[in-house]
Amino acid sequence: MTRVEGGITAPVGFLAAGAACGIKRRGKDLALILSERSASVAGTLTPHPFRASSVDWCRAVLQRGRARAIVVNSGNANCCTGRKGVQATAQMARETALHLGVRPREVLVASTGVIGKELPLERVKQGIREASGQLSRRGSHWAAEAILTTDTRPKELALRFGMGRGAVTLGGIAKGSGMVSPRMATMLAFLTTDARIEPALLRAMLKGAVAESFNAVTVDGEMSTNDLVLLMANGAGAVAPLRAGSPAGKKFQAALGKVCQFLAHEIVRDGEGVSRTMRVTVTGAADPRAASAVARRVAESLLVKTMVAGRDPNWGRIAAAAGNSLVRIDPRKVSIQLGGVAVFRRGQPLRVKPERLLAAVDQPEVRMAIELGNGPGKAQMISGDLTEGYVRINAKYTT
Amino acid sequence: MTRVEGGITAPVGFLAAGAACGIKRRGKDLALILSERSASVAGTLTPHPFRASSVDWCRAVLQRGRARAIVVNSGNANCCTGRKGVQATAQMARETALHLGVRPREVLVASTGVIGKELPLERVKQGIREASGQLSRRGSHWAAEAILTTDTRPKELALRFGMGRGAVTLGGIAKGSGMVSPRMATMLAFLTTDARIEPALLRAMLKGAVAESFNAVTVDGEMSTNDLVLLMANGAGAVAPLRAGSPAGKKFQAALGKVCQFLAHEIVRDGEGVSRTMRVTVTGAADPRAASAVARRVAESLLVKTMVAGRDPNWGRIAAAAGNSLVRIDPRKVSIQLGGVAVFRRGQPLRVKPERLLAAVDQPEVRMAIELGNGPGKAQMISGDLTEGYVRINAKYTT
Repeated sequence: MTRVEGGITAPVGFLAAGAACGIKRRGKDLALILSERSASVAGTLTPHPFRASSVDWCRAVLQRGRARAIVVNSGNANCCTGRKGVQATAQMARETALHLGVRPREVLVASTGVIGKELPLERVKQGIREASGQLSRRGSHWAAEAILTTDTRPKELALRFGMGRGAVTLGGIAKGSGMVSPRMATMLAFLTTDARIEPALLRAMLKGAVAESFNAVTVDGEMSTNDLVLLMANGAGAVAPLRAGSPAGKKFQAALGKVCQFLAHEIVRDGEGVSRTMRVTVTGAADPRAASAVARRVAESLLVKTMVAGRDPNWGRIAAAAGNSLVRIDPRKVSIQLGGVAVFRRGQPLRVKPERLLAAVDQPEVRMAIELGNGPGKAQMISGDLTEGYVRINAKYTT
Repeated sequence: MTRVEGGITAPVGFLAAGAACGIKRRGKDLALILSERSASVAGTLTPHPFRASSVDWCRAVLQRGRARAIVVNSGNANCCTGRKGVQATAQMARETALHLGVRPREVLVASTGVIGKELPLERVKQGIREASGQLSRRGSHWAAEAILTTDTRPKELALRFGMGRGAVTLGGIAKGSGMVSPRMATMLAFLTTDARIEPALLRAMLKGAVAESFNAVTVDGEMSTNDLVLLMANGAGAVAPLRAGSPAGKKFQAALGKVCQFLAHEIVRDGEGVSRTMRVTVTGAADPRAASAVARRVAESLLVKTMVAGRDPNWGRIAAAAGNSLVRIDPRKVSIQLGGVAVFRRGQPLRVKPERLLAAVDQPEVRMAIELGNGPGKAQMISGDLTEGYVRINAKYTT
């Protein structure tokens, strides 16, 4: 498996572009992704009750399992915008279809940005016109830029690997930054591959990869209304169709997991105000769901996050947050490690030299391991610290 | 109902004191409260699995329903401290009993501060000795000071009201600041009254008052391991015993609600880094539990809290947070008001002049009203904003 340049345009038969049409104050804000031939498509969508109409639009396309293009605007989520917002989503699909010579029902739509403001549709249409004229086999980077909001850098990866007598390429781009705590869904991420995979198998593979990547990270515990991951497979790589459970299928699943995890971790590292990340591992829970609840609660605790920001080995906050998960925990069975150092064993605090503890938390990634002594369930969450930077960014977002 | 001076020593027959024994770097850190006669006692305790041994000690005393004294130390939570911690709690009760001439089983114990560090028992004992020599009928203020951690000011109130041919006084002190998000329990609060009330009735009354006060506020969504509210009623006011449902009973319940709400709101106003507060009202939920879940999620949302800090009328975040509660919500039935201004009505955004919206959020208390259109359930939560100050305080707590 080799890392290659080119992001989502590295696979054969994909074009992309990014244009600036004035939805954001500055920078590119409209991205197009086109598959030169009809592609299988799979996606995971936010279950948020206030989800944007673009998410519902995508659901309809995903049910048919095939698509040609994705249009994305940043700077406005087109969410909580009522009937007008629903119409605007359809207009985006139609305008894109018109300029790319495809059908509206083959166009996936995504939006990200401020909630509750009317989408400036004329600007978006102009952006679609511009971007459609710039579609290119090297366009991934511009698309990766155009989907960002408060992110500080594009997130992009492509992997190439042999399969049978041919080779397959898989690429992805993503945006995150704030309102990041996906559940059964994720922030915006777009993946492309030239492998040939039927929609049902593509869906199953994406579901598995998302569970251990985008759904296992959190920046601020805020599930978004516009989260989605889309994966297009156009079969242009001229390898045989992939079968579930085959060696080729396993290889592809592994590559998909790698790309999703890379993008998900990039999202945390570039999360709003994040200076250091943390990895929370929970073992010994009654089941994976309980493990996940404890890991998420610790990963989202303001007191744990500020402790990481301050390089403060105040591990009592890890115990306090774990107990806050409402999962049944017996403290006498619990052990905790901070940065690889055991600090609490089966309910008893351990004496550790302060300088060892300080060194354990003075890392770019702070590891926390919680053993509950209650069963086989385990889970992991990646999260970022909480800094004054997060507050500064979010206290002045729309005004 | 008149507000009077004197806090928890305003009721007849209560003494209090606060001493500095060096658990904290500076300031008083040990409080004693003594009832001159045996008092009925009721309490609500944190259900946190890692709760401190002092909480379990209190549970045993509360089951007997009668007590004479309360000893509290700040600066160290004596939590996650294993067997030694359990012994230290018993030692605190014994030392207090010894100096006050009561029995250990009549002494309630509370601790607050850093988790996972051994309690400096010798200092605590010295503090108990000192404080017991300073017990006074005007000591409430010193006790209120001695229970604080990162709080910036003591929280204290006393009310006096006629009852039958006599008068009853009810006083309270509290501390909060961080790790404040009580569920079925609360931060530290101590209440005293000279009314004569049997333990069972006292418990019922306290439960009602706590549900609408301490359990309806949150600073940072972090339930503490050491939360508790204790209420002592010593009957020294020489009025007849209170009966459930009687006019006197209702009067006392109203006064208790008032004192608890005052202290709870003071805790939010003085929350770590809090510059402005918010009041989240949810109506039209299927039931009170659903209403409460939505109100709590909005009140704890980092994006809503930073929006309040930044005086940013970005109401889409209120909708996004409400949807995050995992309560079933139909957006087409939802209406939202921000600072009394309707911004979203039955799924449609409303056009509002920006200056009206800016004025709506530029208030010391920002009101948010969410109508779900789904039933009779309602709830209210009081919360504070999230500022760079919170991060500064919590990034450097133990080190």
